[in-house]
Formats: sequence, C-alpha cells, structure tokens
Amino acid sequence: MAKEKISRAQDYSAWYNNLVKDADLAEHSAVKGCMIIKPYGYAIWEKMQAELDWRFKKTGHQNAYFPLFVPKSLFEAEEKNAEGFAKECAVVTHYRLKTNPDQPGKLMVDPDAKLEEELIVRPTSEAIIWSTYKNWIQSYRDLPILINQWANVVRWEMRTRLFLRTAEFLWQEGHTAHATKEEAIAETKQMLDVYSDFAENIMAVPVIKGVKTANERFAGAEDTYCIEGLMQDGKALQMGTSHFLGQNFAKAFDVKFLNKENKLIHVWATSWGVSTRLMGALIMMHSDDEGLVLPPKLAPFQVVIIPIYKSDEEKELVIAKGNEILEALTQANISAKFDSRDTHKPGYKFAEYELKGVPIRIALGPRDLANNQIEVTRRDEKTKEIVDADMAIAYIYQMLEKIQENLYQRALKFRNEKIIEVNSWEEFNQALDNGGGFISAHWDGSPETETKIKELSKATIRCIPLENNSQKGTCVFSGNPSIERVLFARAY
Amino acid sequence: MAKEKISRAQDYSAWYNNLVKDADLAEHSAVKGCMIIKPYGYAIWEKMQAELDWRFKKTGHQNAYFPLFVPKSLFEAEEKNAEGFAKECAVVTHYRLKTNPDQPGKLMVDPDAKLEEELIVRPTSEAIIWSTYKNWIQSYRDLPILINQWANVVRWEMRTRLFLRTAEFLWQEGHTAHATKEEAIAETKQMLDVYSDFAENIMAVPVIKGVKTANERFAGAEDTYCIEGLMQDGKALQMGTSHFLGQNFAKAFDVKFLNKENKLIHVWATSWGVSTRLMGALIMMHSDDEGLVLPPKLAPFQVVIIPIYKSDEEKELVIAKGNEILEALTQANISAKFDSRDTHKPGYKFAEYELKGVPIRIALGPRDLANNQIEVTRRDEKTKEIVDADMAIAYIYQMLEKIQENLYQRALKFRNEKIIEVNSWEEFNQALDNGGGFISAHWDGSPETETKIKELSKATIRCIPLENNSQKGTCVFSGNPSIERVLFARAY
Repeated sequence: MAKEKISRAQDYSAWYNNLVKDADLAEHSAVKGCMIIKPYGYAIWEKMQAELDWRFKKTGHQNAYFPLFVPKSLFEAEEKNAEGFAKECAVVTHYRLKTNPDQPGKLMVDPDAKLEEELIVRPTSEAIIWSTYKNWIQSYRDLPILINQWANVVRWEMRTRLFLRTAEFLWQEGHTAHATKEEAIAETKQMLDVYSDFAENIMAVPVIKGVKTANERFAGAEDTYCIEGLMQDGKALQMGTSHFLGQNFAKAFDVKFLNKENKLIHVWATSWGVSTRLMGALIMMHSDDEGLVLPPKLAPFQVVIIPIYKSDEEKELVIAKGNEILEALTQANISAKFDSRDTHKPGYKFAEYELKGVPIRIALGPRDLANNQIEVTRRDEKTKEIVDADMAIAYIYQMLEKIQENLYQRALKFRNEKIIEVNSWEEFNQALDNGGGFISAHWDGSPETETKIKELSKATIRCIPLENNSQKGTCVFSGNPSIERVLFARAY
Repeated sequence: MAKEKISRAQDYSAWYNNLVKDADLAEHSAVKGCMIIKPYGYAIWEKMQAELDWRFKKTGHQNAYFPLFVPKSLFEAEEKNAEGFAKECAVVTHYRLKTNPDQPGKLMVDPDAKLEEELIVRPTSEAIIWSTYKNWIQSYRDLPILINQWANVVRWEMRTRLFLRTAEFLWQEGHTAHATKEEAIAETKQMLDVYSDFAENIMAVPVIKGVKTANERFAGAEDTYCIEGLMQDGKALQMGTSHFLGQNFAKAFDVKFLNKENKLIHVWATSWGVSTRLMGALIMMHSDDEGLVLPPKLAPFQVVIIPIYKSDEEKELVIAKGNEILEALTQANISAKFDSRDTHKPGYKFAEYELKGVPIRIALGPRDLANNQIEVTRRDEKTKEIVDADMAIAYIYQMLEKIQENLYQRALKFRNEKIIEVNSWEEFNQALDNGGGFISAHWDGSPETETKIKELSKATIRCIPLENNSQKGTCVFSGNPSIERVLFARAY
C-alpha cells in the first residue's frame, strides 16, 4: 500500500501507479519493463478475454498458436514492418548456458551455442503467420482464413508503465486472409465494431471509431482503424487497432492463389489486436480517489457481503444469514464473496473492497437481521440503501445493471464534454492546456504539418473519425485548406 | 495429406506424425523445433484448458501471469534447477536490430544494444516466481499462496516431435507456497489427483500415479509425483508432474515468514504442470489406422451431420431436416456441425470426419426422411445403427456417454494387459522386446543400477506406483535385495 493517498487532482499519474499496486492488479518485476499481473488483475483480464473470445468465434474466427520466435530472415521480409519494430525487439542469439569456469556456481552464455540465424521474440506475428499461410493457400477455396491468437509479445520499450506500456504484454492478434480487397476491408471494419461493442458495452468505456493518418499507421498497413478512449486527465488512449494490410504481406511472403477466374493473384490481409493495455483504460476511466471502480460485467466478484457482529450469538446468526444470501446470489448467477474472516474488522474490509472496486457491498448486522433488511452500498456513487431482505436478489440484479449503465453514461458525458472544437492555433493550445480532451480541428492533410503540431504541442492526431461531417475549413496550424476536422489529443 | 497411408503396425511413429498433420492438428514451423498448433488442434487444447482451469479454481487456485524472461542471476540462484535447464535454454542478449550497412534492406543485431545481463526465456518459472514471492510473504497470514499460470515455455530440444517434444510448448504451471511441509505435500498429492481425474475422466486415458526415483526427479525438487500413460506401441508417456520442492527455492531466494510461534522459517513449496504434450497422449491413445479418435468430452464438435441427396427437391428436404437436427442437438448442449457444402461428395466428407475423429456421424438421405429415421455411426467402434428420428437426440446423448466410457475401458484393458511382472533380467528384456508395456520388476533402489538398466535396455523407471504392495524380492539386474516392484518402460 502506498504510504500516502494521492488524489487524481494532485497527480493523476502517481494516483494511477499507486492504484494499480494497491488494488493488487499488477506490479513491476525483476525484469526491466516486464510486469507481473497479480491474481485480482488477471481475473479481470480473464473476463475480458472471455467476452472477446466469444465475439471472435461468433464472427467465424478460430484460435490457433504460432511460434514465439521469428527467424531474422522472415522478420525482415516485409520492410516497413521490420523497420517499424527493429528498434525495440528482443533477440535470441544463443541456445545454451554453461558453468562459468571463473565463478563457481555461476552460469555464462556458451559461445559454442550461437544460433546460425538470430531469432526475434515476436513483437507481432504477421511475419511468422504469413510465411505459414503461404503453405495453406493455393486456391480461392482455401479462403478466407480467419484466425486469432492469444499470446504474449515483446516490444523493448524504454519508458514503461504498468499495463499501459510494458516490454512484454499479453494480447490477441487476429490475422485473416481474403480473396478480395472489399472482403478484407469489410473484415477490418467488422473487427473494429467488435472492439467498440466490447469497449462500450462490457468495459463501459465510450470510444471514437476512426482511421489513423499515414504517420500513425501500423508499420506495413494500408490503413489502420482504431478505437480511442478519453481518460479522466483529458489524455487519449488508443484501445484497439484493426489493420487493412492490403497485399503487402502477401507480396513479401509470395502468397498467391488461383481466383475464380483462374488468375494467380496475391492474397488480401487484415490484422487486429487488443492487449492488456485495456486494463489501463478500464482502471483510468472509472476509478476515483478511493480506489478502483469496476463495471459489473468485468468484476471478478460483483458483490461482497460483510458481516458485522459483537457477540458469538450475533456472529452465528449473521454468518448464517450471510451464507444464505451468498447462496441465493450464486443461484441467480451473481458472483459474490462472503468475507467472514474474523482476523479483520468490518471497517478494514469496507476500505479493502472499496479499493478493489467491487460494485456492490452488502453489510449485514444484528439490527438488519431483526428488521429483515440488508444495507446495500453502490461503489460507483457511494450511495447506501436499506433493502427488504426478501427482495434483495432482484434488487441487486437490477442495481448491477444500473451501475454498468451509469458508468458508461458518466464516462460518455465526460468524454462528450471534452470534445472541443477549435478554429485557431491559439484556441488549439488553450484547449490542450486547459484540461485536454479531444481537440476537433481542421488540418491540411499533410504529414509535415502533423509532425510540426506534434513537436510543438505534444498532441497527435488520434484519428479521423468514421462518423465525420465533411466540412471545409482552414488548417489551424498552416492556414491551408482542409476538407474535414480531425481529432487531436495528447495521448498515452 | 501424406501420400501413402501408413498403419500403426507398419510404423507407429510415422503413423503418428502423419496423423497429426493430416487431421489438421499441428505442423512444423519455420523456427527449428517450434510447432504451429492449427485451429482444429487448438480447439481440443482449449477444451483441455477449460476442464483443467475449472478444476484448479475449484481447489482454490487463482491464475496470474509472470514475465517470459528470467534474468541470468535469478536463473542460477537455485543451483540444481539451473543446472537442469542450462543446457537447453534460449538466451536473449540484445534488444535492438539495425539496418545492415553491407546488405541494403537487411537487418543485423545492433552491437550497441547488448543487454547488461542476459535474459533466459523461461523453461519453467520457479526462479522468477520465487523471487517475487519473496516480496509477498512475511507472515503465516500471507500463506498459502495458490497460483497457476497458463504460459508458453522454451526448452531447446534437439530432437523434436509435434506435441510430444517441442522447443516451445504451451502449458500450465502451478506454484504454491505453504507454511508447513505437511501442507505442501498434501497440495502436491492433491494436484496429482486433479491430473489423474482429468486424464481418466476427460481424456479417457488411464494413468498410473507414482513417484519418480531420484534420477528422474525434476531439477530442484525433493520429490516428483507423476501420472504415466501407456501408448498403443507399448511405450510410456509421462503426462503430468507434481513436485514437492521442499524449501529449496525458499532458501535460494531467501523467502522466510513468521510462523504462528513467531519463528522466522523458510516457506515450503510445490509446483505442478501439464502441457500440450497431453495432445500427443490423447492422439496416440485412442486413434486407429483410419485417423483420429476423440473422446466426446474433448471433441471440438461431437456430432457431424452429412446430407445425402441427388435432386434439388431431395436437397431441400434433407437440408431442412439436417438443420432441424442441428438445432435440436444444440438445444441439448451437444456440439454439432452440419456439413452442407455442395463442393464435396458425402464419401469425401465421411473420410474427412473419420480422419478428424468426430465421435458420431449422422448420415441423412431421402430414404431416411421417408422412414423418419437417421443413420448414426460411432467413430470408436465404426458401428452403424438406424435410429428413429424422434428418439435421435436422447439416443445420441447416451451414445456419447457410451463412447467416452468405451474409450476409457478399451484403453484400460490394453494398459492392464501390458503391465508385465518379470522376475529375471532375461524376462525383463523379453518383455521389452515383445511389445513393451509397463515392466513391473524388483529393483535394488540404487541410482547406479537404474542407470545401467537404462543404458542396456533403454528402459527407465517410470515411477514407483503410489498403490504398491510392499513385496520383498531381488533386483532383476543386480540380484541385490529389493523392497518393492517398480515400473520400467521405454518412454516418450
């Protein structure tokens, strides 16, 4: 537990770091930049995985597993992709250790066990997967291939933050192969919709769907679609990307097929992914100065029951009733925990579950039993209600739905108020410095202007929203003509 | 598809290799020793994971995630463990590539990006996990810690075989910490029981529970418990291990706690794991010369429906009925696939699903419709039955249970017939050369004898069975006194 409680207003970044550790979500490891995802954090990630996996399968995808390592010759085949990741990849050069003759009990890399070809720990799997698809695809009958992989990847980041940016992270990466450009683009957009559905309806995080500028595109993609969320400090967070890869990887790995017209052509590709970064978004979006706030659909347990008693006689009655409620909640498919530990006081437990973001807390004492009632507290609004014990299950069921909806509406209102239209460079900078948010501004469409704006303001174009009104104007920076507004923000 | 069908009798090893590829389970990758698990194979692995994960959670374990990399200094801390894995580990030495000035478009390891300390790609995670537990454990109140991790690991094997032995494989590894020796041993045995329950009741593979000799123990363990299966070629396969680690890792990483008596002592540990190797056991145990045979509890789909028709009119009726049956099966929680592709003939489909081991095939033609019946074929016994269509769902439900049970009983009978008691070195070798199996023999208990027997016969002591009668005798090799029989076998 951090010694001193830091509020969001004091230092949002420190607040986040403390929260991740204090709520037992994750911590730093002995390996620079790599994190340990602790059981409570991992339980949330498992719920995310289950929700996503189900959506992938419903849209026709199957899971598979490809190697962790990419031989250097394959890694460098698609040049833009290789260039994009070369500067941050872990390289395996040897396959054996030996005892160090100079230091008894210590090991050293065995120089005789040098690999002929270095292996790159995958930063993403396009290269290894497309070198495989080459053998799987001959005719249009072999298409589409709709595969997803749950895996760990490594990108050697210099500045890391738990969940948001770590050297190793967990993710899923979809890799699909199609006979036509249209089909591949439709897939790219479909998966973006799957991500936004998940973000909004499960994570309760509103997102803007858009397309990246050339500068911000995935290395090797023709187009990168994204969902962007806005955190409480006014900074944007990219929550998922879906790439239309064109024929770039098919050309790099020579993957051709005979189409229906009996012509040999290159295959069209997509890839799409979300990662444990979503944990960062979830934490930052809803939590408050008292701790984590979890949407019921992702909470490892949705309800915690805390008994309050003094005498042994009271204890017996309260424990019995607590078990009865636990059983009834479980029967109703509400995940609940009954914390009957007698090593900790109720006040301690209240604070613990507040910190851990459990959506609903039930307190149960002798007076509640006498009046056939329970005390129900919502984590999101911290409101307390007294509920007839006979109606408790139905009441809690509805309250969970209300909390889920409330978190989304609260976040949506916040986000919408933070989309700020500006029409000059001065307004642009004022908005950024005055709480940030998505700055909706005209841009002349040139990468040079984009780069200059980034240098001067640290704001990047998060996306060109898919639902954008075409509106002529002049670029806030260059004054050149613009055909539409785009969304700028400082970002994680 | 392999050009020529090879039977088990002809060449068991080639039969296995072909089957893994032809049934679309896995294939070799561009990375030496690493495999690609294809969607159909991965779907089976996912079912295994779900069954195991549920059992782990029911016994109080939580999932978490620890880093892929182990810094060399941590790796070497527990000397026996380090020694056991040093010869087969992938080592990351650099964190960046750069463009090769001599070869445009090619990359090379950037010599300026050498790591100060090499990172080992985890062959197992005791080191990284115990270096973490050190920070989590102060008092007996922090114990037990009951954590499992689903992960990939790398052991640089020279001779690899799909699923059975690969450089990278997928597994789960449980790592628990306890206040007392007794509790740790109880945990070790509990997890062995979880594994044997899973092997027998889900995989339909009978196993012998036992303990390894010192020679065969996990590097760093005090005792290694195991479950051992027997494949159709008479060779044994170690299917899972559960290690009592004593205080070895606690001592190596200085993990102590204040016990209830306020004494500072080292923590007791266990670790336990099963891997994608189980896929190899599943395939080898039940399959036949026509292909894979899957137990219903692990089949990606349990029933396949194949329509048979000539005219368009017939097609319409048969497809309608097929969809009706599919819907009814799905309602009854039976996973089914209706293969209504008109690009392939029924005969082709029959062979395909036989090869893929689908437990039940339903063929549905116009005559079946006229007689209100369906034709049901069991994959395990290849028997065909005509069933009243109105009774079909209940009938299939029961048939799936029968197939699951039949596979287990068949394997159990085979295995039991292959446990051969021998009382001399001559009998020992005869048994081994005459179809193999578990050779139950007296052994004098010395590692030297064990090593000599291994050198001469290629048979190892698979385990000292937990349910063993103490029976005095003389060692089949040395003639020295023995207190019990142990099980030898040639093994995968």
